[in-house]
Amino acid sequence: MGWAIALHGGAGVPVNLPPERRLPREAALRHCLEIGVAALEAQKHPLDVVELVVRELENDPNFNAGKGSVLTSAGTVEMEASIMDGKTKKCGAVSGVTTVVNAISLARLVMEKTPHVYLACDGAEAFAREQGVETVDPSQFVTVENIERLKQAKQANKVQLDYTQPKTPIPTADDQDGQTGTVGCVAVDRNGNLASATSTGGLVNKMVGRIGDSPIIGAGTYANSLCAVSATGVGESIIRATVARDVAALMEYKGLSLKEAAAYVVEECVPTATVGLVAVSATGEVTMPFNTVGMFRACATEDGYSEIAIWPTV
Amino acid sequence: MGWAIALHGGAGVPVNLPPERRLPREAALRHCLEIGVAALEAQKHPLDVVELVVRELENDPNFNAGKGSVLTSAGTVEMEASIMDGKTKKCGAVSGVTTVVNAISLARLVMEKTPHVYLACDGAEAFAREQGVETVDPSQFVTVENIERLKQAKQANKVQLDYTQPKTPIPTADDQDGQTGTVGCVAVDRNGNLASATSTGGLVNKMVGRIGDSPIIGAGTYANSLCAVSATGVGESIIRATVARDVAALMEYKGLSLKEAAAYVVEECVPTATVGLVAVSATGEVTMPFNTVGMFRACATEDGYSEIAIWPTV
Repeated sequence: MGWAIALHGGAGVPVNLPPERRLPREAALRHCLEIGVAALEAQKHPLDVVELVVRELENDPNFNAGKGSVLTSAGTVEMEASIMDGKTKKCGAVSGVTTVVNAISLARLVMEKTPHVYLACDGAEAFAREQGVETVDPSQFVTVENIERLKQAKQANKVQLDYTQPKTPIPTADDQDGQTGTVGCVAVDRNGNLASATSTGGLVNKMVGRIGDSPIIGAGTYANSLCAVSATGVGESIIRATVARDVAALMEYKGLSLKEAAAYVVEECVPTATVGLVAVSATGEVTMPFNTVGMFRACATEDGYSEIAIWPTV
Repeated sequence: MGWAIALHGGAGVPVNLPPERRLPREAALRHCLEIGVAALEAQKHPLDVVELVVRELENDPNFNAGKGSVLTSAGTVEMEASIMDGKTKKCGAVSGVTTVVNAISLARLVMEKTPHVYLACDGAEAFAREQGVETVDPSQFVTVENIERLKQAKQANKVQLDYTQPKTPIPTADDQDGQTGTVGCVAVDRNGNLASATSTGGLVNKMVGRIGDSPIIGAGTYANSLCAVSATGVGESIIRATVARDVAALMEYKGLSLKEAAAYVVEECVPTATVGLVAVSATGEVTMPFNTVGMFRACATEDGYSEIAIWPTV
């Protein structure tokens, strides 16, 4: 048994991601992994580690969370996040956040400073002000790239505007931006303490008020005494399949190993090309399966294994 | 195999509910059960049945949903609901709804008319207007009883105002109103089609923006091809334990029967005095376990069994 960590930067990766888009993201994954590993080696609690790593990912405009958040159909940013501690099952979540620089830290404050698990919209914003977390004008989250991305989504996907035909929003090879998705991190320390954190800007061109899987305990985020899981992909598929909880439930109720449980969920429980996840077990195993073209991901374990990858490895 | 239906009006029942508060609720449970049974006998789809029954429960000011919704700490009403179809796992949910007469029907419209699963707050309200569902001025949901209830909660529970000490909000014998909780309905038809629906006004004196378990797929509401489940009680406990999904997961992954699975979740997976649920299986079994003092509940099966109860039966 030793520590282990895994993180993701979203499963919405096109087949042909050009080097100028690939390299900065690989560098960011490496940077965030190093920060997480250093924190685990310094014996920080996994809850602190996953919050720290997700804050870094939120602060990087290359990923769809925090500063890189994609835009709603109204051109606004609505961020959401959740965090969960495995041993206590304590958890916190926020949705519809528009000014908070690090939604993941607000989720943690909901967990620690309120009698509730989950705050949304105006109530979450009021709580953020009361707690004094860093906020900026909503316009600060809107990047030039995301304005263009929304424009393209509206042109390519007019059907979504009248809501009649749900369309899978994961980008294909045609989509060269590779910036949809989510960020997340899971970690376990030498004592088997587990934690999971997930944060996102959601889907390009999503309806105002849309909630995805990232803030939903059991869907995008879950941790108990056996494992910690953070999912990414088409939020609606992840919610229907309670992806993060099911990985843990397959271990708890069916006796599968972490790798078996995670593979089963990704292969059998969700539509193809929709979902990826990262997970660690109490005994320091790591797995990062996905059924999309690729998933920005990285992991490391105390015994020296480390991986940074985007597409399937042989 | 035959049809079966079960419904609840919340698990927040005090020990000594006086007859003037008990009798109208029992009558309402009977009325709603009859409506549901008639709909199943008329071979309506369980999805239509659970929506119909929950609408009736929302329209009754005796229950904490729709017109009887309890108030936030700001004295406002914020309703939430979700609905799920077992066969397709399609689902819809809303939170932070302030003007919609029947939140459950808005949740169903999210499921059927949008590419999303879950809409909240201003976005959910805008969608409601676009769809032309019945709305009223928010003041119409505020009852005299709930103003008094909020006043008492603020006096009795000042600690909740500074958020430092989470407190179990399920009423005890001291609380004579018996109107916290949730409403919900599960149903199965002769062909094994399953559906679940849950709706609530949330907790008395909840923070503005607080989301509970009722709109969370896997927590307050879940249905798949094996069973349909609707939970009620302390939302935060239900979210942490993914109560509704776990009943189904214990059947799916551990081979338990509906009754065994539901009993295990209520007895082993959540704190005492916090949770109740109603559930039906694809083969027409019904169960309604709770670990609170009581739960307003009713059920019927095609073979003639029927039950309307509040406290434990021998």
